[in-house]
Amino acid sequence: MPNQTDRLATGLATIQSITGQSGQSVVESLKDIAPDFADWIVAFAYGDVMSRSGLDKPTRQIATIAALTALGTAAAQLKVHINGALNVGCTPQAITETILQMAVYAGFPATINGLAVAREVFQERGVSLAGAG
Amino acid sequence: MPNQTDRLATGLATIQSITGQSGQSVVESLKDIAPDFADWIVAFAYGDVMSRSGLDKPTRQIATIAALTALGTAAAQLKVHINGALNVGCTPQAITETILQMAVYAGFPATINGLAVAREVFQERGVSLAGAG
Amino acid sequence: MPNQTDRLATGLATIQSITGQSGQSVVESLKDIAPDFADWIVAFAYGDVMSRSGLDKPTRQIATIAALTALGTAAAQLKVHINGALNVGCTPQAITETILQMAVYAGFPATINGLAVAREVFQERGVSLAGAG
Amino acid sequence: MPNQTDRLATGLATIQSITGQSGQSVVESLKDIAPDFADWIVAFAYGDVMSRSGLDKPTRQIATIAALTALGTAAAQLKVHINGALNVGCTPQAITETILQMAVYAGFPATINGLAVAREVFQERGVSLAGAG
Amino acid sequence: MPNQTDRLATGLATIQSITGQSGQSVVESLKDIAPDFADWIVAFAYGDVMSRSGLDKPTRQIATIAALTALGTAAAQLKVHINGALNVGCTPQAITETILQMAVYAGFPATINGLAVAREVFQERGVSLAGAG
Amino acid sequence: MPNQTDRLATGLATIQSITGQSGQSVVESLKDIAPDFADWIVAFAYGDVMSRSGLDKPTRQIATIAALTALGTAAAQLKVHINGALNVGCTPQAITETILQMAVYAGFPATINGLAVAREVFQERGVSLAGAG
Repeated sequence: MPNQTDRLATGLATIQSITGQSGQSVVESLKDIAPDFADWIVAFAYGDVMSRSGLDKPTRQIATIAALTALGTAAAQLKVHINGALNVGCTPQAITETILQMAVYAGFPATINGLAVAREVFQERGVSLAGAG
Repeated sequence: MPNQTDRLATGLATIQSITGQSGQSVVESLKDIAPDFADWIVAFAYGDVMSRSGLDKPTRQIATIAALTALGTAAAQLKVHINGALNVGCTPQAITETILQMAVYAGFPATINGLAVAREVFQERGVSLAGAG
Repeated sequence: MPNQTDRLATGLATIQSITGQSGQSVVESLKDIAPDFADWIVAFAYGDVMSRSGLDKPTRQIATIAALTALGTAAAQLKVHINGALNVGCTPQAITETILQMAVYAGFPATINGLAVAREVFQERGVSLAGAG
Repeated sequence: MPNQTDRLATGLATIQSITGQSGQSVVESLKDIAPDFADWIVAFAYGDVMSRSGLDKPTRQIATIAALTALGTAAAQLKVHINGALNVGCTPQAITETILQMAVYAGFPATINGLAVAREVFQERGVSLAGAG
Repeated sequence: MPNQTDRLATGLATIQSITGQSGQSVVESLKDIAPDFADWIVAFAYGDVMSRSGLDKPTRQIATIAALTALGTAAAQLKVHINGALNVGCTPQAITETILQMAVYAGFPATINGLAVAREVFQERGVSLAGAG
Repeated sequence: MPNQTDRLATGLATIQSITGQSGQSVVESLKDIAPDFADWIVAFAYGDVMSRSGLDKPTRQIATIAALTALGTAAAQLKVHINGALNVGCTPQAITETILQMAVYAGFPATINGLAVAREVFQERGVSLAGAG
């Protein structure tokens, strides 16, 4: 197992490459109330898990988008990870397709709500909606 | 939009290419109690949705595995789709990684239960567990 | 508000009329570990809630079947309430339709798993599956 | 199976009869980002499923309200379908009773949140709350 | 079983001791649309259940905070019960720890969203965040 | 932050003290398919999280039992943690009360299913059910 310094460094590099500033802002915002949890996001979620080599970063983001769309309880996190998907090279179309597919596995309301988050991200980043569907 | 004959034909080809016999067995088993629903699986779930070109088949299976692992309410369907993932070229490692990642997004019990399904599939197909983790 | 004796009497009559023996067996089986909870099922769930006049009994069973199919975490209770639906006059077709409709609101796996429970009930009671779909 | 033109026509008529303008607005709003999904809502959700004759429209709305209240992840869709229930002839009391019943099957918070949506709809439509409980 | 007058009296005393004014406001706000449900909150949820002696009040609040954080569908109720936990003597640290623990059992997004509610409560009450983590 | 050796050692001691052999068996059983995940259970779930001093061990087990009962998707893990609760000094009554309380927050089916797991554990350990309710 990597040592703690390496876990944090790997995690910081991974969170930076996936989420850019938005994920780091979440981590920063947690330091007042739960500094250890902020560290767990960096060292465990990104350092131990999301940095692993067995799955490429775009596919990992698709998996996260699928899960958060299906669960339907984490709109803010879904927004971070749709941004993350674009950051690591997913096309808008791949993101939209993933959310559409959830209509089969989690129902139409899950997809409608997921698309609302995707639209918000696409519009903030100037992504053409016409090519995303 | 494609016509009905095309939707069913596309769906049958897609369900065959992803799930092989197991998905078709599910469809067949539903014809006694809900023949229209059996058609919807073929024409809608596979014909309209899973056959789309905007996302390659292996990535679609990863998305499904992520969602079903996170939801935790569909072990039988997760088994069909882990089989499907192997059928369309996902490596065992990619499947395992997807399930592991869900520990971050849906909790450790979701991953433990997802891995139990994956182990069952891998063992039935003679996939080495040592290389899957 | 009704007094306690009335709540229990109303609840017992209601549970008997909806579930027949199966609901009462659930209540009996809980008396070893949680006798007060057994009373709550009778006095609250059936006495206060399910006995209310604002919705007829068949529609209440449809609502319960819809919810339990969508949640996907209560197969044993879904079985009790599909039996209950038949007991209070729902047709097998109405039950099947309700479960099918959940494909839209909670996804196809929810419907597949709900239909498996319905088939089990229909077969135990000798209900023709051909007319149920 | 009906042909595509019929599915869309049936779906449009059904969505119009149940949701009036609000459901069509949802469909319209999706055409920028996911035009095929907008079609699926019309052709599949309303054309194939919600238009079926095996369950009357008011009972279908009760089933949807039960499921969305229990899931707790689809407040906007619950609002559309409470409106839809009133549109197809459900009484306010039947809607309220369905949401109350979910306290038994999905917990009190689900009912509290469902009632908040119902109150919003009833107030927008000038439905007396006094007669709804 | 206690009589109805006692159930309501016990419930009112319990809701007052746990939630102070906030829980009673929820109950009051429900009297327009669902007066019987308002009574159920008092007589059943607080009178029958939350007043029981088998678990002390602080531990009951921890159990509720754990469940609502894990479910992720009841932010308003989580806020009431974090306030309730402080009212019955839970330390801010115990509340934060409970929410952190849910990262293991329900995933990191559940914890992030739970912490946002806790921060809101702590800030409204002037609880130092520095000592809460 | 502790170093890796300390995290694993703390985690092993914590998992041993809470779950005894059953938790360690889960960890061992995962080493074939996902050895890194087995390490995460020890180092993260037990080493970083469950070993923390801000909440005593019995209360942590109550929180876990509440969450897993409410989620309803993790019966095997609920069994491990009901055993764990008894191991760290929770009374059977405290466990039963926690599960009963979930009827309010997650519905009666969640409690019925949680009680079935508790009964199984109590019977395996020779705990009198009469005193548990």
